[in-house]
Amino acid sequence: MNEKMSILMFSGDYDKALAALILANTAMEINVDVNMFFAFWGLLLIRKPNDDPKDDKTISEKMFANMTPKGIEDLPLSKMNFAGIGKKMLVGMMEDSDTPTIEAFLKGALKKGVNMKACKLSCEVMGFREGDFLPEVEIITAEDYLKDALKSNIQLFI
Amino acid sequence: MNEKMSILMFSGDYDKALAALILANTAMEINVDVNMFFAFWGLLLIRKPNDDPKDDKTISEKMFANMTPKGIEDLPLSKMNFAGIGKKMLVGMMEDSDTPTIEAFLKGALKKGVNMKACKLSCEVMGFREGDFLPEVEIITAEDYLKDALKSNIQLFI
Amino acid sequence: MNEKMSILMFSGDYDKALAALILANTAMEINVDVNMFFAFWGLLLIRKPNDDPKDDKTISEKMFANMTPKGIEDLPLSKMNFAGIGKKMLVGMMEDSDTPTIEAFLKGALKKGVNMKACKLSCEVMGFREGDFLPEVEIITAEDYLKDALKSNIQLFI
Repeated sequence: MNEKMSILMFSGDYDKALAALILANTAMEINVDVNMFFAFWGLLLIRKPNDDPKDDKTISEKMFANMTPKGIEDLPLSKMNFAGIGKKMLVGMMEDSDTPTIEAFLKGALKKGVNMKACKLSCEVMGFREGDFLPEVEIITAEDYLKDALKSNIQLFI
Repeated sequence: MNEKMSILMFSGDYDKALAALILANTAMEINVDVNMFFAFWGLLLIRKPNDDPKDDKTISEKMFANMTPKGIEDLPLSKMNFAGIGKKMLVGMMEDSDTPTIEAFLKGALKKGVNMKACKLSCEVMGFREGDFLPEVEIITAEDYLKDALKSNIQLFI
Repeated sequence: MNEKMSILMFSGDYDKALAALILANTAMEINVDVNMFFAFWGLLLIRKPNDDPKDDKTISEKMFANMTPKGIEDLPLSKMNFAGIGKKMLVGMMEDSDTPTIEAFLKGALKKGVNMKACKLSCEVMGFREGDFLPEVEIITAEDYLKDALKSNIQLFI
């Protein structure tokens, strides 16, 4: 049986998401299975792009859905202004060094078979339904996450 | 012997504290023992509520004690202004979805038997004494934390 | 064979770097081997102090090298303004409690034999070369990091 890595993706930051997805892609390349559990702001990484808020949402859920980043490329940096380095500069430096975009890492991870799950409680609080996410994403509980993490060789909270 | 989870709670953010306490409660429900080691800003989660600074503190320790959040409900968000989502909105959305308060998760964790320890060095730097914390909290060293983490099945830094 | 701890140091924050280095020092003292993998902002912890940008850097790499903290003591706090507590106050409180400086913890970790590695992809994006780092630092890939983390008893993402 393959070794396993479990990532609890809590953050909705562009740079942390990039780190997590690079680790996930790399792990799959060396035959380590990867489970990513998206909670809180992490849910913003796996939203269906350019999706309009569904009619069954409450007003505050619609507001939340509209005010938050709609796709992974729109996430902000963890340090808005780390010594003056903005996201534009980071993305420019990634292009200069021929690093793939974060969206390419996300698609690569799904293609390689990374399991992506959304946290049920976070979805309830934030008003997300399974239909709000990429088609590969399934909603599971924190208990499901923990049972899986217990069987993993590496567990990271990002 | 039960499986074990070790959480190093470094952050003093409301949302990260909530995530950690939900994990701790969930783990106890499936018979996984939980040790939480509070360091740096994490110490602000386990302060005795509405406690006046002790007389044996230095002036800067008193200032620090007065300027920092006095109880777990007063912690700020990790993203003050994540796409305009403030803490008030998050707490409102938690109420709307009948999610318990963070204080309820803290009390639940203690009731279920989560071990809560404070980092000795952090206490020394920040001027906290054992009496400043909830009665269940004991002060231990980073060495104690590591020895325990080595025996755990899951280790997270939050 | 000794037990092992693996730290992925993503953050470039003074307080998180301090926590990581205290853990690393403490682990070595109880015969736990430590590997630290510095990625993204974490690279700023291991820069050669007072080093002028090399001539083989592009203009944006030079800008980046000049705009970011040049040494570990210059790193900012994770919360710039956590309830009004600035870095000056934290460093003052560390002095008052006779806590060693972060630079002392960094040197101590190297002296005790903590392995410090820099992430190849992060270096490429940010324009760092091996010569930009402390002499003990070697550049390795995310794959190398993962293979090592799989053999560790504790893995933390900081």
